[in-house]
Amino acid sequence: MKISVLQMPVVVDKSENLAEAERLIKLSVKAGADIAVLPEMFCCPYSNDYFTDYAEPVGGEIWNFLSKAAKEYSIYLVGGSMPEIDVDKIYNTCFVFNRNGEQIARHRKVHLFNVDIEGGQRFFESETFTAGDDVTVFDTEFGKIGLCICFDLRFPELSRSMTLKGASMVIVPAAFNMTTGPMHWETMFRQRAVDDQLFTVGASPAHNEQGIYVSYANSIVCDPWGRVMARAGFEPEVITAEIDFSEIPSARKQLPLLSARRPEVY
Amino acid sequence: MKISVLQMPVVVDKSENLAEAERLIKLSVKAGADIAVLPEMFCCPYSNDYFTDYAEPVGGEIWNFLSKAAKEYSIYLVGGSMPEIDVDKIYNTCFVFNRNGEQIARHRKVHLFNVDIEGGQRFFESETFTAGDDVTVFDTEFGKIGLCICFDLRFPELSRSMTLKGASMVIVPAAFNMTTGPMHWETMFRQRAVDDQLFTVGASPAHNEQGIYVSYANSIVCDPWGRVMARAGFEPEVITAEIDFSEIPSARKQLPLLSARRPEVY
Repeated sequence: MKISVLQMPVVVDKSENLAEAERLIKLSVKAGADIAVLPEMFCCPYSNDYFTDYAEPVGGEIWNFLSKAAKEYSIYLVGGSMPEIDVDKIYNTCFVFNRNGEQIARHRKVHLFNVDIEGGQRFFESETFTAGDDVTVFDTEFGKIGLCICFDLRFPELSRSMTLKGASMVIVPAAFNMTTGPMHWETMFRQRAVDDQLFTVGASPAHNEQGIYVSYANSIVCDPWGRVMARAGFEPEVITAEIDFSEIPSARKQLPLLSARRPEVY
Repeated sequence: MKISVLQMPVVVDKSENLAEAERLIKLSVKAGADIAVLPEMFCCPYSNDYFTDYAEPVGGEIWNFLSKAAKEYSIYLVGGSMPEIDVDKIYNTCFVFNRNGEQIARHRKVHLFNVDIEGGQRFFESETFTAGDDVTVFDTEFGKIGLCICFDLRFPELSRSMTLKGASMVIVPAAFNMTTGPMHWETMFRQRAVDDQLFTVGASPAHNEQGIYVSYANSIVCDPWGRVMARAGFEPEVITAEIDFSEIPSARKQLPLLSARRPEVY
């Protein structure tokens, strides 16, 4: 199985973002990808000033674009995330579509990003978004895959929950910033992979110093031993990794972590 | 507060190990340490061939040595670990003593190290040891400190439990090998520090290619942002770090992780 991460630039113009997403989806298909992953807020600037205006419901323009692209290119498409409006609430939501363009998963970001770092990043997602309440794992022809969004991966409990629900990989559309990115991004993806003995995939927008939100980029794929299999830099790029889920039972047998847990103690 | 990690060579002769431990305790006191940390199995070769013969009860030679040294040098002494015999069972146990030489904590390794890595390490602690059943946090004049042994830190649930019990630091006598050490040691200590927003301390035996057990060494101290504050190489060495527990509320306020947990979801 091959997975591609589409590290795309995100601009203010929504239709320009959709066109760029489609261009990169085509590149991933050329690279032989079975699964393509878009970044968090791939078609909306990551800012409380834009989320409400760009919000759309299920069946709206963005959702339809993703469904159609998945079907047209016969690919699993992990639709990064978008501001999803549902009645009077807005969520930071990732939709996943199968090769027939059918929605097979929806993850609403469970942990909203509220930080205020001295001399660094300040951001309060909860000013706009409502938090989701669900652990998300979906089925594919290759096996089960877990899904969460950016700050969600900060919480080892959530990736552990996905693991215990059978996930062989955790996919994370994300957008770390220039404060927490250099400090924490790679270590987090590597350690979650090691702790849960599965593949981890982080998909970021490309870096743009002049952007409304300056993403750390550095999209990444790690294997169950915590080794980095593929990694982007700051520029727009498609990275592709060949994934063999049979490495998981092998890793879990050689280094038995999950079976050695002591839930009665914790 | 200053903490010293005593990265000592471990040899077959028990009394030689105790003498070396005392020599390094003296060095740590010279460095101004309030807490000194010995490595896992600091006075017994790390091998199932030795654990039973070297096992001692509370009040035995090793326990008395530690208690006496803590009192003599007026230091908190984290006694690495030793094979502890209690009636008919043997545990991999760490005893902690306060400045008066009184035992203030006992941690029996909860997760026994049973691995069989292709082309790498094979070890089954459970051939000799019985597992402990407790999460260990102890009080000091500086604040609460969590304690576990080596493989225990593989499990994010355990460090989270210590954190929720109020630990500001997790101390880990350990002995990673040359397979898992280069792959996982530093990343694990850094990520646990970030996830739980506390200080982490790993204390290893020095590296010896000709030793019965070849330790990765690389003793380490990390701060709540996951930065490496002090790190040893392969050689015998005392590393010392100045710790300010007031960095913890500051980190937890700037990047609110613990308060953002969603236990009802996991």
